[in-house]
Parts: sequence; C-alpha cells; structure tokens
Amino acid sequence: MKLLTYSIEGSEPRLGFIHNNQVIDMEDFGDVSNFPLPKTMLELIDMGFDVIAEINDLIADTSEKQFDEIAYDINEVTFLAPIPKPRKNIIGIGLNYTEHVAESARTLDTTGKLPTKPIIFSKPPTTVTATNTNIIKNTKLTSQLDWECELAVVISKKGKYVTKQDALDYVFGYTVINDISARDCRREGQWIVSKGQDTFAPMGPILVTKDEIENPHNLNLSLKVNGIEKQNSNTKFMLFNINDLIEDLSIVFTLEPGDIIATGTPAGVGAGRDPQEWMYDGDVVEATVEGIGTIVNTIKEI
Amino acid sequence: MKLLTYSIEGSEPRLGFIHNNQVIDMEDFGDVSNFPLPKTMLELIDMGFDVIAEINDLIADTSEKQFDEIAYDINEVTFLAPIPKPRKNIIGIGLNYTEHVAESARTLDTTGKLPTKPIIFSKPPTTVTATNTNIIKNTKLTSQLDWECELAVVISKKGKYVTKQDALDYVFGYTVINDISARDCRREGQWIVSKGQDTFAPMGPILVTKDEIENPHNLNLSLKVNGIEKQNSNTKFMLFNINDLIEDLSIVFTLEPGDIIATGTPAGVGAGRDPQEWMYDGDVVEATVEGIGTIVNTIKEI
Repeated sequence: MKLLTYSIEGSEPRLGFIHNNQVIDMEDFGDVSNFPLPKTMLELIDMGFDVIAEINDLIADTSEKQFDEIAYDINEVTFLAPIPKPRKNIIGIGLNYTEHVAESARTLDTTGKLPTKPIIFSKPPTTVTATNTNIIKNTKLTSQLDWECELAVVISKKGKYVTKQDALDYVFGYTVINDISARDCRREGQWIVSKGQDTFAPMGPILVTKDEIENPHNLNLSLKVNGIEKQNSNTKFMLFNINDLIEDLSIVFTLEPGDIIATGTPAGVGAGRDPQEWMYDGDVVEATVEGIGTIVNTIKEI
Repeated sequence: MKLLTYSIEGSEPRLGFIHNNQVIDMEDFGDVSNFPLPKTMLELIDMGFDVIAEINDLIADTSEKQFDEIAYDINEVTFLAPIPKPRKNIIGIGLNYTEHVAESARTLDTTGKLPTKPIIFSKPPTTVTATNTNIIKNTKLTSQLDWECELAVVISKKGKYVTKQDALDYVFGYTVINDISARDCRREGQWIVSKGQDTFAPMGPILVTKDEIENPHNLNLSLKVNGIEKQNSNTKFMLFNINDLIEDLSIVFTLEPGDIIATGTPAGVGAGRDPQEWMYDGDVVEATVEGIGTIVNTIKEI
C-alpha cells in the first residue's frame, strides 16, 4: 500500500492511502468496509503487518463507485510526514556508503576508516517535517546547512536480538528522509545538535509498505538543490544493509513498532564538495527514493 | 508533591503520591475529591504545573480517615520509573562538571577543554528502568560498564527560545537518573550505543515537583557501588546550570511536556579512576540526589 498522513481543510492529521491516484481516508474506508480501521499511521502499525493484506483484500472487494464517494483529489489534501510524531528519536545511521565515508573524512572530522559496526546517532521527533514545508536554518547556530538523501525503514513490531535472516519480518515499510545536517554544530564530536534541530528531518511524501518494494537493496536515491543534481546512488551500495542494521540495532536497543531508521546517505553532500556547498534562504531541496517519491523543501533563514 | 509511578499486584503502571509515608493513588484520590485526576505521570504533566497547587489544596481538605481508606503501605507497592515510557529519547548532558571534564580527558577520548556550549547526547526510552531492577550488561558488547549519578529535570510545557530568566517556569520537577555508560561502545565518537542500551537509565525512585525543591542548584548528589562511595558532589558545581541548559536546548529543539534532561555527572566515574573500575555481575549501584532519594540497581551480566 501507498500510505500517507494528510490533512484536509486544516483537519487533524489523518491516515489515508492512495488508490487510482486519489486519496482514500483509512477510517472512512473502514466504515465502508465494515472493518474498523484507524485514524493514524502508528495505530495502523500497532495492528501488525498482516493487516495490510486484509486491507488489500477489502480494497479488491470495493467498487470504484464506492471509492469515488469517499475519495479526495490528491491535489486537495496536504501531505504531512507519514509519522508526524514518532514515539522516540529517529535512529540515524552515519557513514553507511563507502564514498560518503571518504568525502566525510576529507572535510569533516571523521576518521575515514570504514566502520566495522553501524555508526548510530539520533534525531528527536521535533525534527520531523513534511514535504512542501520549510527547513528552518537558524543563522545564529549554523552557516553550514547540508543535505543527506536517505531511505528510511519503519519497524513493524517489537524486536530484540533479531537475526539478519529474520530482519525484514520486522519491517513495516519505507519512506524518504532528508537528514539535514548543520555541519558546524557538532559539540565534542556529538552529532545531535548538527542533525537534531527542529525541521531537520523532512519525511515522506508517503510510506510504502514492504510488500510493494521488491528489493529495498536496489533503489536509486538522488537529491537536487535548486534543480541541480547533487546525489545519485543506489541502496545496493550501503555498507550495512537493512538486515545488518536491524540485527545490530536490536542487540543494542529493543526495537519497537513505529521506530524509524534513517539508513545513511551516499556521496555528494555539500560538505564533501570542493569548494564546499551549503544551503541558503530560498534554496529548494528535493530528495527522491525510487518507488517511494520525492520530498521537496525550502530553506528559510531566521 | 512527591509523585511516583507504581504498580501493585502486577497492575499496569499507575500514578500516585506519597502522603504521610503512604502511597495514595492519584486517580482514587481524584474520586474521593470529586476532581478528576489522571492515571499516569505524563497525563498529569499535560495538565500543566498549576494543577499541583490545586491538588495540594485538595489534600489539605482531605481527612486522614479519608486517606487511610485509599492508602497503600509504601512497602506494598512496586516503584516504577516516574516516567516509565518517555515520549522521546532522554536528553543527556555530557561533561557538565569541571572535574569530570578533566577525568574524562585523562582516560577517555574527550578533549579536556571546558565546553563552551552544553554537550548533548540521547538515551532512548527503552533505556529507562526503575529502582530495584537489574541493569543488563551484555558482555558481548561491553567490558567497561560505568556509573554516572545525575539530577534529572522534567519539563512541564512546550518551549522554544526560552530565556535563562524564564527557564524554571518550564520545569515540572526533578528525579534521579543513573546515566549508565559502556565506555567501550562508542562508535566514531558517538555516545548513543555507550549510553543507550536497554536498562541504561535507572530513574526514580520518585519525581519531586519543583515547588518542593528550594534550590535545584544546591543539592548533594552521590553514588555508591557495593556500599563504597564513588561520587559525592553538589549540583552547584554544574558548568551549565539548569537555566543555561533550558535556554540552550530550547534554541536547538522545541522542548515538550515530559521531556527529561539528565544534567550531567560529577567526578568519580569508574573510567576516571586509577586503575579504572567497572561494574560486574551482582554489583549493586546506588545513586542519590538530596531531596529526591536513592535508586538502587544490580548489575546482571548476560
């Protein structure tokens, strides 16, 4: 399914899905189908991944006339982040593409060694913002605002000591995150101020359930600033793939439904360029992952 | 008020307060007082700090006979962490006491420079555990398990760009956190694996509302391992005090009700000793902050 969180005419965030390029409200669809369905993405995830197959069965049993009665035009709704308010900090993975490890070591303070275990950091829930919103650049904090296009993995169920073999059983679906990073905001090497400021995790535009992504390890990902391509790679080049990450993370933390893992960015960030490039007021940044979509955000300096 | 989250006979976590050394359930007290009161600490915080004065007025109007009818013996209940499931990662502050900066630089990889801004890291909600529980030491991940006694600040309301002058208006109360740290688990300098493993944030035993702490910047804090004192200092020695921290953090992040700030630890950690000391299976660690209480935990190696 292609799931979204949306609002319409200023409503509270609501869960929907895309059907024939229209938006169907999940709760309304449940009413039509006599099958209670929730209002929010986190409530849906809490129902367990098997509910997706049940909903797909219900969709197959629903007439287009029935859909038309509850459908919104896709241009009529406001796309919100698929999970507007995560239950904990987003789990970020650093230095997970070889060439990005090299470019970071050239220009930032990382060592350049290929990591032997995933490099983990976090982004608070207050970093999350939707497509078509502003990324706030506080010029008192940073003059080095950078981009990082990433595939994000959403966890479906509680897991501890998950093996690589079983890891994808713990995935609910995928979305796109632009892991905005203020390079000059590290403190004693810690990245949370660099990556954790309000609006520094544009997410969306939709969440695609895992059954619709044939191979998450073969997705192009790319990023443009003001229409010029800056990143272009493929998830097959991750150093630690999704299976590796879930195994490792679940040794450290208990994974929980709705947890979000931003799996790292490929080469092409502004910090790694010669000369370095940063984002300024009015710049438009577009992050795309194949099979999911593009999130578009505008930098707003304050 | 001296608030606690507790369970009794295996119940769900419930909110209570301590009155005459007995535990009074908050919801039951609301029933007695004809004033609806919540089941959980986060719901209480969401009511706003002014509710504390209202509850204190209700307590003054309640007879001891009425209390006795709904009271539990303090030894009859199980103390849980005051906020068993925070809404986001705990905000940790590193290197916030001068002598701890020095001891860390001697033996860890920090620079030894006094920070000019607070050093921030995070601990996921899954780190939280109560007093009288085990701290799980995964011997495949660490052989350097260390302690850090800290005053923790609980935020009462949403805040962005809060000034130092107004900062304490945003405080709900205080508790104790033992910021357990596996010193050999840093990755590319990031602390989240070191400090973020399950059970690495013992918290409690109670939350004391700010009106009962005369001066949060003059509280003794101390820690013992197997009965031997390892840390003994005072919150007056913080480099960045609570007002400074709230001002700085709220520039970076929007603070929200129920956010928890672990304000850093004084000197005396195991890593800073000569020879270094770590915790092993069966060791008992007790962290105390004056006016709040002591949390006691036992190391369990797996």
